[in-house]
Amino acid sequence: MTTEHIDIAIVGGGVSGVYSAWKLKTKYPDKKIVVFEGSDHIGGRLLSVKPPEIPNMVAELGGMRILENNQKLIVNLIAELNAKLPKDNQIELYDFPVDQPQNIAYLRGEHLRLSDFTTNPDKVPYHLSFLERGNSSGTIVVNAIEQIVPGITDPSLTEDDRLRMTQTATFEGIPLHKLGFWNLLYRVISGEAYQFSMDSGGYNSTLVNWNAADAIPWYLSDFGITPQYKGFKKGFQQVPITVANFFESIGGEIRLNAKLESFDWNGSNFDLQIDGESLTAGQLILAMPRRSLDLLAPTCPKLQEIQSLIGSVTPRPLFKVFTTYSSPWWRVAGYTDASGKYIPLQSGRTVTDLPVRQTYYWPNSDGSPATSGNSMLLASYDDGSNIGFWDGLRPQRKKTWSRGLAHTQIEDPFVGEEGVELKAEANESDGLNQNWHQYKAPRRMIEEMSRQLRQIHDLDFTPCVRSAAFRDWGEDPFGGGWNSWNIGVKSWEVRDKIVHPIDDCPLFICGEAYSDAQGWVEGALQTADIMLKHLL
Amino acid sequence: MTTEHIDIAIVGGGVSGVYSAWKLKTKYPDKKIVVFEGSDHIGGRLLSVKPPEIPNMVAELGGMRILENNQKLIVNLIAELNAKLPKDNQIELYDFPVDQPQNIAYLRGEHLRLSDFTTNPDKVPYHLSFLERGNSSGTIVVNAIEQIVPGITDPSLTEDDRLRMTQTATFEGIPLHKLGFWNLLYRVISGEAYQFSMDSGGYNSTLVNWNAADAIPWYLSDFGITPQYKGFKKGFQQVPITVANFFESIGGEIRLNAKLESFDWNGSNFDLQIDGESLTAGQLILAMPRRSLDLLAPTCPKLQEIQSLIGSVTPRPLFKVFTTYSSPWWRVAGYTDASGKYIPLQSGRTVTDLPVRQTYYWPNSDGSPATSGNSMLLASYDDGSNIGFWDGLRPQRKKTWSRGLAHTQIEDPFVGEEGVELKAEANESDGLNQNWHQYKAPRRMIEEMSRQLRQIHDLDFTPCVRSAAFRDWGEDPFGGGWNSWNIGVKSWEVRDKIVHPIDDCPLFICGEAYSDAQGWVEGALQTADIMLKHLL
Repeated sequence: MTTEHIDIAIVGGGVSGVYSAWKLKTKYPDKKIVVFEGSDHIGGRLLSVKPPEIPNMVAELGGMRILENNQKLIVNLIAELNAKLPKDNQIELYDFPVDQPQNIAYLRGEHLRLSDFTTNPDKVPYHLSFLERGNSSGTIVVNAIEQIVPGITDPSLTEDDRLRMTQTATFEGIPLHKLGFWNLLYRVISGEAYQFSMDSGGYNSTLVNWNAADAIPWYLSDFGITPQYKGFKKGFQQVPITVANFFESIGGEIRLNAKLESFDWNGSNFDLQIDGESLTAGQLILAMPRRSLDLLAPTCPKLQEIQSLIGSVTPRPLFKVFTTYSSPWWRVAGYTDASGKYIPLQSGRTVTDLPVRQTYYWPNSDGSPATSGNSMLLASYDDGSNIGFWDGLRPQRKKTWSRGLAHTQIEDPFVGEEGVELKAEANESDGLNQNWHQYKAPRRMIEEMSRQLRQIHDLDFTPCVRSAAFRDWGEDPFGGGWNSWNIGVKSWEVRDKIVHPIDDCPLFICGEAYSDAQGWVEGALQTADIMLKHLL
Repeated sequence: MTTEHIDIAIVGGGVSGVYSAWKLKTKYPDKKIVVFEGSDHIGGRLLSVKPPEIPNMVAELGGMRILENNQKLIVNLIAELNAKLPKDNQIELYDFPVDQPQNIAYLRGEHLRLSDFTTNPDKVPYHLSFLERGNSSGTIVVNAIEQIVPGITDPSLTEDDRLRMTQTATFEGIPLHKLGFWNLLYRVISGEAYQFSMDSGGYNSTLVNWNAADAIPWYLSDFGITPQYKGFKKGFQQVPITVANFFESIGGEIRLNAKLESFDWNGSNFDLQIDGESLTAGQLILAMPRRSLDLLAPTCPKLQEIQSLIGSVTPRPLFKVFTTYSSPWWRVAGYTDASGKYIPLQSGRTVTDLPVRQTYYWPNSDGSPATSGNSMLLASYDDGSNIGFWDGLRPQRKKTWSRGLAHTQIEDPFVGEEGVELKAEANESDGLNQNWHQYKAPRRMIEEMSRQLRQIHDLDFTPCVRSAAFRDWGEDPFGGGWNSWNIGVKSWEVRDKIVHPIDDCPLFICGEAYSDAQGWVEGALQTADIMLKHLL
């Protein structure tokens, strides 16, 4: 029996893996190129599922949007895919609703509208300074950033301009990459302004102590300069699945439920162990985030050689819970304006400092709000220290990852307050075969979430939760929803080095974790493109 | 050459290690009993150092007090030691000052006196409910606990009564040990009351989601029923050093800088590797917290067998920073009372929600406040999520532990704003030979701390910091200042099991980590006593 030989083995079926595979197969049609994916589906941290009995919505349990103005790589990829796709199966975008003035901010036990931040500063229960008052979280942080790196918020600058500025900027004589974002913010804004920015911004992990040289341009791109968010009508997972289909259509091969257990380099080939089978490969691409590399390292000497590169980022836990209802009950939590017109809550998000943190009134697939009938919330989009709160309401997170298990089994799942498990919708889009019920939420978590949602909306009654889906990206093998650069690292050097970390060994690494756009598909494509320069 | 054989090898020179060694040697004078300690001194997380030029104070970089009314084991041990010690070298206690009404609470950007919590509830910047208003943090949490386990706050109950109650109590039908303390508190008090309790209580890690069956009696003992704190005139480290001296005086042996690298059980003896030397031992006691066991596990098959016991607690980071000054400048931050009398800030602590969190006005060795001249602050006593803030202001914490290195080397140490390194005091107490300058603080951390101390005390000027000492117990091999039981664990079963975890193998484990009094010397003595029943 001879061992199977593969020219280029790609491990990881997320965006960076299938994109690299497709580009390589297009360039080298005669090479044997195989994508190995440990779970039962393509997409990585993109995971689009159809909620039961709501045919016009797609729940994005993973990545849910792009920044159309700034993220040229994903925009160009979508155009490239659409040029090849039939008219009736195009990747279509919609305007992803953002914060609406009537939406609620429930902070420090006070109910505010988002508009109160700027129009009723006296109502904002934070002891802000004269200069800080009357501003939203985004404005406060952008103003702080301008104090730290004067000139960087000039809207005429490009992303690259801003990156270059923070690579060379100093604060009190110390290069920014040696400083923590939290520490710097504390120098230029009050503790209360920092807390307000964290609480009303909705995220816990973005303002923590990560590398300031990376955090500043990242924040400006993501939150600072009025962002144009776009969602995906059929779900963001359509993108990697489409790419994977194109790869297969030109002879590429994808093997699901194929988990890499170890590899070594013998000087001319890689010896791979995949599901107990031995294979050899001429070139090896690991399209994975840090935690996946950490899990492999004990059995892979070549990864041990580059521990300091791998360890230059930190995975940040993050989870999403979707809940469905028989009506969009949140619409009653709006208000009547001066002209007597009722303004409902209906789109974008509400924020709170309770552990729920962010709730999105989920849109129809065309971006319009649900106005009646079966409806859905992204009940909680949560990261950072609140993860510990929800951890208490569910079985302990599995820290080891079993083959074929895409998602931790739940011991005491939420079934639905009506006691009926609703029939899952089939997904119309080719290949989007993930079943809502694979991603059951823990019962006690949904009960506590419902309690907090009533409190946030100041309602004594909210209708039954009919069904719920949950995905915690802190679980193995991902370790986090996104990754952030550590203090002290020159990210621009690590980013370019880690794609081909060992000179005389054809090992390659790509993915969101080691990019300039961490947490975004754009980052996955960026590092894949840098890596492909070595291979094409 | 024959391999050295030891009858009983004890690894770890903290309280539980030297106490067990002394008791065993007293019972078995003819057995060869050796304590192996990886660092250069005895005491573990008790570390008492003399600040330069302040002869009448001792800085407690580790544990600093006992609860005299509740902690019978340490009280009895001190009495036992004093009965054997000469008159001029007794272990003497002083009343450890606690919260004074005039002390400051700087919360949400507002300056309050601690007395305002109860006398001026309108000034407290938290949206508390009708029932919660006008209470201190301790009262709010005790009232919450009474709602969770009715009857448990009855002062006539003993510690054991309370432990038994929480072992059998349920909340909404679920046993308490399956519930998280944070989750339960959120059910019975408002989110704002929870935040107020956390912020004004001074600790981040005590109210998090640890095992409610353990957290509730722990909280009542430590904070709930008016505690009587006692400090140690010559430093708490005098206790383990005295015990170690007694152990040696009856023929016991202590080897410092002797790090256990691995062990295995061959059916009749343990094979130990200590500093590259092979030894055998008939019985082995690991007097260590969880993180130390985790660090050993990869090379010790017997520890791998009991991973689930070892993993039943979580180490909680915690650090202390002491700063010295040429005068007790904080005295001016008091107030003049109605009768015209000036009430200075002088003892106990101040709390804030800034990352500094808790500042103690350190007492003289007789418990009296410093009134003039060289003086000292426990500038920050900090745990939980704020650790991340300070991590940004110092070199990355070492995650691997080098032999003989008791404390991570600091790259950019704080020397003193006067630019002079003060001469370290010799410690008068026998054996307390730790040098203040071994525990240098990072320069940028002290600068930021000074900035926050000025803000908390509402002073535009504070005198130079003359010298600073710092110890982070989150560093290896400790992993944390204390350990907390995980949700789902029956701690009373694990506690009794882990002292002798494998029936046919004379391996023993003791220490604070797996006790009912986590974070206290009392807990170390408790598990040592349970373990000694198997050995005496």
